[in-house]
Amino acid sequence: MKKLSLRTRVLTGAVAVAALGAGTFGAMSANASTPAAAPAAAVKADAANDNLQQTTHLTVAAATKAARATLDAAKKENQRVSVAVVDRNGNTVVTLRGDGAGPQSYDAAQKKAFTAVSWNAPTSELAKRLANAPTLKDIPGTLFLAGGAPVQVSGAPIAGIGVAGAPSGDLDEKFAQAGVASLAR
Amino acid sequence: MKKLSLRTRVLTGAVAVAALGAGTFGAMSANASTPAAAPAAAVKADAANDNLQQTTHLTVAAATKAARATLDAAKKENQRVSVAVVDRNGNTVVTLRGDGAGPQSYDAAQKKAFTAVSWNAPTSELAKRLANAPTLKDIPGTLFLAGGAPVQVSGAPIAGIGVAGAPSGDLDEKFAQAGVASLAR
Amino acid sequence: MKKLSLRTRVLTGAVAVAALGAGTFGAMSANASTPAAAPAAAVKADAANDNLQQTTHLTVAAATKAARATLDAAKKENQRVSVAVVDRNGNTVVTLRGDGAGPQSYDAAQKKAFTAVSWNAPTSELAKRLANAPTLKDIPGTLFLAGGAPVQVSGAPIAGIGVAGAPSGDLDEKFAQAGVASLAR
Amino acid sequence: MKKLSLRTRVLTGAVAVAALGAGTFGAMSANASTPAAAPAAAVKADAANDNLQQTTHLTVAAATKAARATLDAAKKENQRVSVAVVDRNGNTVVTLRGDGAGPQSYDAAQKKAFTAVSWNAPTSELAKRLANAPTLKDIPGTLFLAGGAPVQVSGAPIAGIGVAGAPSGDLDEKFAQAGVASLAR
Amino acid sequence: MKKLSLRTRVLTGAVAVAALGAGTFGAMSANASTPAAAPAAAVKADAANDNLQQTTHLTVAAATKAARATLDAAKKENQRVSVAVVDRNGNTVVTLRGDGAGPQSYDAAQKKAFTAVSWNAPTSELAKRLANAPTLKDIPGTLFLAGGAPVQVSGAPIAGIGVAGAPSGDLDEKFAQAGVASLAR
Amino acid sequence: MKKLSLRTRVLTGAVAVAALGAGTFGAMSANASTPAAAPAAAVKADAANDNLQQTTHLTVAAATKAARATLDAAKKENQRVSVAVVDRNGNTVVTLRGDGAGPQSYDAAQKKAFTAVSWNAPTSELAKRLANAPTLKDIPGTLFLAGGAPVQVSGAPIAGIGVAGAPSGDLDEKFAQAGVASLAR
Amino acid sequence: MKKLSLRTRVLTGAVAVAALGAGTFGAMSANASTPAAAPAAAVKADAANDNLQQTTHLTVAAATKAARATLDAAKKENQRVSVAVVDRNGNTVVTLRGDGAGPQSYDAAQKKAFTAVSWNAPTSELAKRLANAPTLKDIPGTLFLAGGAPVQVSGAPIAGIGVAGAPSGDLDEKFAQAGVASLAR
Amino acid sequence: MKKLSLRTRVLTGAVAVAALGAGTFGAMSANASTPAAAPAAAVKADAANDNLQQTTHLTVAAATKAARATLDAAKKENQRVSVAVVDRNGNTVVTLRGDGAGPQSYDAAQKKAFTAVSWNAPTSELAKRLANAPTLKDIPGTLFLAGGAPVQVSGAPIAGIGVAGAPSGDLDEKFAQAGVASLAR
Repeated sequence: MKKLSLRTRVLTGAVAVAALGAGTFGAMSANASTPAAAPAAAVKADAANDNLQQTTHLTVAAATKAARATLDAAKKENQRVSVAVVDRNGNTVVTLRGDGAGPQSYDAAQKKAFTAVSWNAPTSELAKRLANAPTLKDIPGTLFLAGGAPVQVSGAPIAGIGVAGAPSGDLDEKFAQAGVASLAR
Repeated sequence: MKKLSLRTRVLTGAVAVAALGAGTFGAMSANASTPAAAPAAAVKADAANDNLQQTTHLTVAAATKAARATLDAAKKENQRVSVAVVDRNGNTVVTLRGDGAGPQSYDAAQKKAFTAVSWNAPTSELAKRLANAPTLKDIPGTLFLAGGAPVQVSGAPIAGIGVAGAPSGDLDEKFAQAGVASLAR
Repeated sequence: MKKLSLRTRVLTGAVAVAALGAGTFGAMSANASTPAAAPAAAVKADAANDNLQQTTHLTVAAATKAARATLDAAKKENQRVSVAVVDRNGNTVVTLRGDGAGPQSYDAAQKKAFTAVSWNAPTSELAKRLANAPTLKDIPGTLFLAGGAPVQVSGAPIAGIGVAGAPSGDLDEKFAQAGVASLAR
Repeated sequence: MKKLSLRTRVLTGAVAVAALGAGTFGAMSANASTPAAAPAAAVKADAANDNLQQTTHLTVAAATKAARATLDAAKKENQRVSVAVVDRNGNTVVTLRGDGAGPQSYDAAQKKAFTAVSWNAPTSELAKRLANAPTLKDIPGTLFLAGGAPVQVSGAPIAGIGVAGAPSGDLDEKFAQAGVASLAR
Repeated sequence: MKKLSLRTRVLTGAVAVAALGAGTFGAMSANASTPAAAPAAAVKADAANDNLQQTTHLTVAAATKAARATLDAAKKENQRVSVAVVDRNGNTVVTLRGDGAGPQSYDAAQKKAFTAVSWNAPTSELAKRLANAPTLKDIPGTLFLAGGAPVQVSGAPIAGIGVAGAPSGDLDEKFAQAGVASLAR
Repeated sequence: MKKLSLRTRVLTGAVAVAALGAGTFGAMSANASTPAAAPAAAVKADAANDNLQQTTHLTVAAATKAARATLDAAKKENQRVSVAVVDRNGNTVVTLRGDGAGPQSYDAAQKKAFTAVSWNAPTSELAKRLANAPTLKDIPGTLFLAGGAPVQVSGAPIAGIGVAGAPSGDLDEKFAQAGVASLAR
Repeated sequence: MKKLSLRTRVLTGAVAVAALGAGTFGAMSANASTPAAAPAAAVKADAANDNLQQTTHLTVAAATKAARATLDAAKKENQRVSVAVVDRNGNTVVTLRGDGAGPQSYDAAQKKAFTAVSWNAPTSELAKRLANAPTLKDIPGTLFLAGGAPVQVSGAPIAGIGVAGAPSGDLDEKFAQAGVASLAR
Repeated sequence: MKKLSLRTRVLTGAVAVAALGAGTFGAMSANASTPAAAPAAAVKADAANDNLQQTTHLTVAAATKAARATLDAAKKENQRVSVAVVDRNGNTVVTLRGDGAGPQSYDAAQKKAFTAVSWNAPTSELAKRLANAPTLKDIPGTLFLAGGAPVQVSGAPIAGIGVAGAPSGDLDEKFAQAGVASLAR
């Protein structure tokens, strides 16, 4: 019965969600040499109706909170960046063009976010995979440059946060991770 | 009354969902002159975590079933069409370019599906809205031409099915509705 | 057996093809108010293998001949035009940018050819259909402006010829028809 | 001397800015039939260096505040919309895809914002101009549909706010105006 | 002999060019109801080599002079516009984004210039042709809105000048004509 | 003589075609270092009309069968992928976005399919060719990454199947080959 | 003095032009390590009017002749290719999609032609320049892959011919050169 | 020390600006291995209104002057190039397609200018950064090829000048620097 199964799912899911309330938001430190199968927690079959599935997304309020935390982290280090939050389907949810950020930063941030959520790993990790598969970077919408981090629920990607504009991609990614971390508060 | 019905729906959403197992898939016969607020059943807040929301989608198996039912309906009337199924975020899930369908049909089908899910109404109804708001059709990704139908759960759109290639948009839409109907079986 | 069925097809088809050798190339004078189902002769199932179908195309030599005949017809009337030949899948086979033709003519010719083969009718006829279905013209790749003509085999479209650059679309279409006619010689 | 001239400008400008602190943010009620020359207060020559000019922009913090106020206004009326803030050069500064907003709303919001800042008027007013100049809407990047409002300083446009997703453009524009109004607080 | 024929051409051409030195630069006041065949003076066959033809273009110095004259004319009337000069092949030669011009003006100016050179008439005239051929405006690259003017040599188009950003297209076109006129000086 | 040579080819080809009914569907193990001329069986001249040629395509039913077989193969290994089937002209016939597949997989699958049919080889083989011709990958529409496989009739490509979303391209290609194999059943 | 130097160039050029009647059409064997300044014979100032310059182009008849010669050369070696001829401004003049050529060949041919005319050298030579300037290949419109050849008059590029579809770029370029050679006949 | 110098700059920014009247226009010789935080002088908060900031731009007159100086410098060395000036937001302000410049030069010049202003360094320097971050060049709008130079005020980028078409990027950049230098006169 639909109603029951749904309740069951919510209850069961709530455990994981509660857990994630305690810190499971964060970028997986992906093992580039042995990529595991992508976790599936964020996509669930609907037991009562074979035709349907549920997917998990950030609310726009949460995505905005993360994006602002990202800019705040950059501001503390006197860096000018742009930030984007992309959902698990690759659709952009929030963009903020930071004051004084270079014009290239706006698109770059979106592509980093897209890349992080696509492979469920920080783009600094993903960039290393190009050593073995250099044409990965030719996939449309991607940018294999540090600065993107996935947002995860129970290990599955539900969003990506991308940052661009700082002097190095590592700095960009530090700010993106600050955005991810803000979601656990 | 809209307000009441919405309240009712939220409280007893599970009931409605159960009902849909019994046949609520289908295209809303939208009242173009008094468009109501879009129903929200397909997007739910996650009670355990303010940061999250759930969205409902067709499985690819269901979307493929609907697309094939669409082509079968067209074949019975000796029409050559293409069909597309687009999810509630506008992302294409399934496309089938029918044998002998005109080259214009492939893109047109996608745009009709996108339009139907965007406004939660058949595109034959939406086309009538242009009388009052002719520039609606300038929104990127849309095609205000009969042949698209929304897939609904509890009145909320979760997908759109678009068809193109038959000699008239009404025929196209008849086939799209056959695709929608196949999901209730 | 594959071999036999192929022979059968060729023999059967040859009747139609022979007919077309006697003049069936030409643009259908479409009846815009009662569009019939698109003829299917140019797409055939393969009796020996359910997985396969055959489609008919102009050779590049034939398409070039038609395109040159088109430019010759324009030159006789001192008009500067561009011409395009598009196959039944909408792929451009030949383009010729005529000497002194306006810069808009090159893309316009391709779109007219695409439109003519998509609906199997001259674009002068198709433009009239906008009275009943004005948003047809919003389908990507199309241009509902006189100057395009379909190339037909047994009534089915196998290519489109589009012309642009003359002072009127009717002149453009006259030249396109000259291109079509050249294929019957 | 640069410093002095700048101070002079700031002081002079401060009057206008102070005024605008008291409510001059808002969409000009443009007189569509007699469009005046675009005000220039937001672009100033630099008296000390003929090569330079200054332009005025919203900070990303202000733009985010306005975008959130827009979504809040929509939420109060139970509408699901997306919002975009575009600067006076047409570059997008902030986008927020609202929970449950239709997929068409994201691009539409940006185009409405772009249109409002381009002509320094609400898009509901601009849409009326199409009666006299119907091809205005063919300019790339624009959407002549209610839902966009300019942000002004001393009457000059410094940004545009665009909203899409509500059942009518007038509702969209009401929310956009709420976003504009939030900047005066 | 190549050399002789070239000389001949130059001498013959020089008459026309000399004439145009005396004022033939300017936008043809096209008769929209009876468009003549496009003049061909700007494209010449090369008598000595059937394979070659010559086309006439503005130098970049001339195009820049015209563009600056256009902006100067606008400045005199306190209007903020952008201007583009496009050659007879539709390639942009010069663009100037005027101080304080709206963001929509840059692309619009190019499209107006492209349209004017394509049909060898001011876009104010061309816009009237839409009454008889409304889908002309669907040709890629065009904008049928006042503000574009052709540059002619012996009646043939060699460039287009497009202006956008003023409150009306007629004003835009007045400035474009000022740019054309500057070439005769 | 043209006709004779054609006959010879058809006769020879018929043997192969008969064979293929028994399982010759499959990806050619291309020899990357000595690429042979592309086989031509899938394009045939029409003996009765020099203007025409026939091309062989999968039916949409066959393409859908192959795409579903591909997803089934991935599901058995708990992988989430998208799949595309592209015809010999590069036009997409079927796309299926698998449940839970990353957003990058949809476009990547199409490009892999396009690449496989373009060079009539698995993309894992084609990727190796980049060692000698690194700019091959700059050709529009291509992706030189394992995961694509051609569908062949008598050694000639009639379609391509592309898969993306698994942790490695080799896995993707295994699933694509399962799709190819399904056509021989 | 400007006028004199121009005259000198014209006179000098004329000799070369005469020579080219005797066979100077052909691809320059560019010295990649010491690229000389691009020859300018194909662009001439107009002595009678400082505002004007003349550029030299192939007629469409010549370009078609070259394209057909290219396809004929390929056919002799049983290769299936597409060919494009692009003028000195980068505008495509002729395209022919060869029978049975891979779908990637059409765009690739245009890009090779564009590249050859842009740098006035065969693309096989240009590809070698990437060793020193690897990002040259990121310039829009280019493809640094053998198969393109410039058409020259007096050493200056007036067109490019691009070929794609053969198993190697060297073969493609051989056919392109056959097209160039046909212009000298 | 960065922090101090920044403080100093803010306090005495006017001095630096005054100094720039005396020649501080010029391209920073960026230290690619230790990129500093981007200077912020060109973006200022508005002390009277927290919502606003000021950005500094070249006037179109200044940008045109620089572009013409660039072409003049190229002409002196008999090189044919195109030039573009892009503002700090990445929007193109001026383009000049030089007489006889290759068709690839127009887009390349814009991308070089965009790249130079984005990272506030000459593109010859930026190209070296690819050694450590090779995917930087995949950011949309960029071209990491010598020929671009930033225009700076007090060390902050306010524009970029890009040049393309000369036989080497170093030559292109020399001309771009001549354009920058013209602004100090």
